[in-house]
Amino acid sequence: MTKDIPEFSLQRMPVYLNYLRSLPDDGTYGYISSGAIAQGLGLGEVLVRKDLAYTGCAGKPKVGYPRAELIRALEKFLCVHDKKNAVIVGVGGLGRALLSYGGFVNYGIELACAFDNDPAKIGTYIAGKPVLSVADLREGCRRCGAILAIVAVPAQAAQTVAEQLKDAGIKAILNFAPVQIAPGDSVRVINIDVAANLAILASML
Amino acid sequence: MTKDIPEFSLQRMPVYLNYLRSLPDDGTYGYISSGAIAQGLGLGEVLVRKDLAYTGCAGKPKVGYPRAELIRALEKFLCVHDKKNAVIVGVGGLGRALLSYGGFVNYGIELACAFDNDPAKIGTYIAGKPVLSVADLREGCRRCGAILAIVAVPAQAAQTVAEQLKDAGIKAILNFAPVQIAPGDSVRVINIDVAANLAILASML
Repeated sequence: MTKDIPEFSLQRMPVYLNYLRSLPDDGTYGYISSGAIAQGLGLGEVLVRKDLAYTGCAGKPKVGYPRAELIRALEKFLCVHDKKNAVIVGVGGLGRALLSYGGFVNYGIELACAFDNDPAKIGTYIAGKPVLSVADLREGCRRCGAILAIVAVPAQAAQTVAEQLKDAGIKAILNFAPVQIAPGDSVRVINIDVAANLAILASML
Repeated sequence: MTKDIPEFSLQRMPVYLNYLRSLPDDGTYGYISSGAIAQGLGLGEVLVRKDLAYTGCAGKPKVGYPRAELIRALEKFLCVHDKKNAVIVGVGGLGRALLSYGGFVNYGIELACAFDNDPAKIGTYIAGKPVLSVADLREGCRRCGAILAIVAVPAQAAQTVAEQLKDAGIKAILNFAPVQIAPGDSVRVINIDVAANLAILASML
């Protein structure tokens, strides 16, 4: 299903889900109109209707979308209830911060373990997650059945790590290393270059 | 100039710059073709030509782009040589990691200082940057002439912080809080929801 949706629409799905989940449960928002959602998120109303149509949840004329139902539809769309295990490679400041970040459970994602090549870190626990040696990447990913990985290693190590993750059966990588990685066609990649995003913002001014 | 460029093309500009900077300076890459760049980055050649046309740097038929010149054009496009000050609000694990991250200087961005509301953190230095009280946000931003801000606070605090940053003269915000913020039309925002990006990757599988 999600294969047919434009990337920008897909990117907005978690935004809709977060917003609808954030509304009070006092009954005020039993139904919510596309206009109200558009206003709440600063988006166009037509855009919101088009995006939400992909969830298969239909809004009622003059009433809007049944909120609980729309939330369930978005959760289903984002496979929130299919538990997925993820691993983090690179336990520097960022990897450490991500291990302590609680937001993944909202999407059915569990950070199972982390990998690093620093002997001082291997064998320790961060936020209750074990830090294993990158030498055990393949076995570690297999054992916890991880299909997702976060790469938070230095740029020069990213490509090698990406290839090792592919060999370990990882299907999708979120890459924080400020370099393009190409693990191969079978692995999906989203790159997040924090400095580049800030530079892009600056160049828009 | 950058106002007329499609967002996806703009997003790729730092990718081209990183790639061209990463090539060896032994003379092998005095000139580089759009095909070579496309192959190196796993992009389409036509796409690469279209993107690079926005930089105003012209490639020579059968030879390619003069690499040094193309790097300068991309740097100019991304305003890399205009020094810009940025601040971080929220010195949790992520804020701490970003303060220690060296990649910003590659884009002419200097992290001037950080803000937090935790008395235990206020007055300390992280990676050589002072942590000030959010109560001094306005004065702190003004004093260092910051126009960029990174928001790394909990979701429930993000909107208030965004409004305070607008009042403090900030023109663009990189938001890591897992919630939409609306500081007002005069402030550009890019949201980075790490968990959401991982969920999007998972839903593509």
